[in-house]
Amino acid sequence: MKNVVVIGGGTGVFTVLSGLKKYPYHLSAIVTMADDGGSTGTLREEFGILPPGDVRRALVALAASDNQTMSELFNFRFGENSSLHGHSLGNLLLTALEKITGSLTEALKEAVKILNVKGDVIPVTLKKTKLHAELEDGTIVEGESNIDIPKHNPNLKIKRVFLEPKVTANADAVRAIKSADVVILGPGDLFTSIIPNLLVVDIVGALKKTKAKIIYISNVMTKFGETNHFKASEFIAEIENYLGKDVIDYYVVNIEKLKGKVLERYKHENVDFVDYDKDNLGKSNFKTVTGSFLRKGQFLRHDQEKLAQVLSGIIGK
Amino acid sequence: MKNVVVIGGGTGVFTVLSGLKKYPYHLSAIVTMADDGGSTGTLREEFGILPPGDVRRALVALAASDNQTMSELFNFRFGENSSLHGHSLGNLLLTALEKITGSLTEALKEAVKILNVKGDVIPVTLKKTKLHAELEDGTIVEGESNIDIPKHNPNLKIKRVFLEPKVTANADAVRAIKSADVVILGPGDLFTSIIPNLLVVDIVGALKKTKAKIIYISNVMTKFGETNHFKASEFIAEIENYLGKDVIDYYVVNIEKLKGKVLERYKHENVDFVDYDKDNLGKSNFKTVTGSFLRKGQFLRHDQEKLAQVLSGIIGK
Repeated sequence: MKNVVVIGGGTGVFTVLSGLKKYPYHLSAIVTMADDGGSTGTLREEFGILPPGDVRRALVALAASDNQTMSELFNFRFGENSSLHGHSLGNLLLTALEKITGSLTEALKEAVKILNVKGDVIPVTLKKTKLHAELEDGTIVEGESNIDIPKHNPNLKIKRVFLEPKVTANADAVRAIKSADVVILGPGDLFTSIIPNLLVVDIVGALKKTKAKIIYISNVMTKFGETNHFKASEFIAEIENYLGKDVIDYYVVNIEKLKGKVLERYKHENVDFVDYDKDNLGKSNFKTVTGSFLRKGQFLRHDQEKLAQVLSGIIGK
Repeated sequence: MKNVVVIGGGTGVFTVLSGLKKYPYHLSAIVTMADDGGSTGTLREEFGILPPGDVRRALVALAASDNQTMSELFNFRFGENSSLHGHSLGNLLLTALEKITGSLTEALKEAVKILNVKGDVIPVTLKKTKLHAELEDGTIVEGESNIDIPKHNPNLKIKRVFLEPKVTANADAVRAIKSADVVILGPGDLFTSIIPNLLVVDIVGALKKTKAKIIYISNVMTKFGETNHFKASEFIAEIENYLGKDVIDYYVVNIEKLKGKVLERYKHENVDFVDYDKDNLGKSNFKTVTGSFLRKGQFLRHDQEKLAQVLSGIIGK
């Protein structure tokens, strides 16, 4: 069975894992530990735990489908205006498990049993750290959620992101990358969900050493204050900026665009479709795979089945 | 297999169920829905749910022992000073399940699966109500937790307790009592955990009609503001006040008393050992079973094994 490792954070990892879980692969998810917003942020601060949000999404994606209620429970969110501050029950459960067992690794082992998870969910690091961004004017923005919201002047470009303190990788993450047949990066917020994984010491090294095929999936939409007006070539250029050239083997790019009503809400968010600027990708060392990967619905996102189909074509049997 | 029904609330039900679960009985717990304090109170108020606290304790007591972590999780309590206000994870989980499934009954079915519960946990009513107490001076105290803490003048006797609004019983509770071989009331706080069950319309009727043996277990200690200086005869007199004479078949009374250091903390709480005043029980229609049922430890409580042993003697095979 092929070992497929998905690296990222947020809903992107969920989409890829949910799609691929119907295929006969052994799936591992390496998730960012930079999240410090919302429910996760409150829990980190009050209980000194590692951030549960991205771990929770990956666990639910890999949960056996006969456990529908547990998945619903994990994602259940209490009202923002209640004394429970919009916490998701899964985050609270992971917090309690980390407190009971004494570590996120042990907590995850228990959560995997409870949810009957097929696969592995691996925090990219077990050390506490904080994401920082340096903007083009030299301003330093501290904290993933401040970069993500954004709280800075959203018209300023992000020059670079870094972790403070520097932290080493979870040995399980390095092991998973080394023994992978395929590693998939993204889709997900470039500077706040994908690159934070590459900032963890030893992850880039492992990605360079592994014999696995490495796939990067760019986003469907740009993100205001993070990737304003970014085209496909700019997404991968940023990834290669941290990962080095000649590491990515396949670049999966959506070229489907929609018109009409669904776009209205996105106009207010100052985001656009990510353009496939083929000419700028011309002399690359990776193979670009394009297709129509949009999900029909309220949100402009990747469709998990369409994405899984193209990925399985690259992964092979 | 004998059908044994335990009626009560609080830690008393937990003690009886935990002890009896090692015996070959089918156990059902009928639990009070009057609790409105602490975590349960906040959740009731904010989410409009039925009180989860007593249900949670009964579920954990009946959880299969191979599910130790789930039991620990259900009872895990976040710090009082955190934004999570001392909530227990089990209460939050039951709240989420009630919100997801739309009813406490459905929520319980899911919780029973999650915890691999052997037996039934039955809310005495599925209607919302509030416990009230009338004191000897005519004052009305509203709310279970105000009576329990107590917030009233603790030297005044409780004349009677009542539910407002009056509510009918959960049909499952009535059915369980009717088909029981043995029904066990208590131990537990007389006016706030045990009698509230008897105030629910149809429960007393069912207890009068059932062919089951009915056992009442009095408390080890009195409770300040609720049963000050109560002796064994007064506990059962209050029960019979609500239940009628000739309903209780067995009265289980602890006669073991301890001396020394363990009592110091209890002096501050203005509580005493419940005296076994044999003479006042002389002309009763029930059989009194006395014994040494104390648990060795920090708290003066019933020992679950000793209690289960004497109960199994009454229940028979």
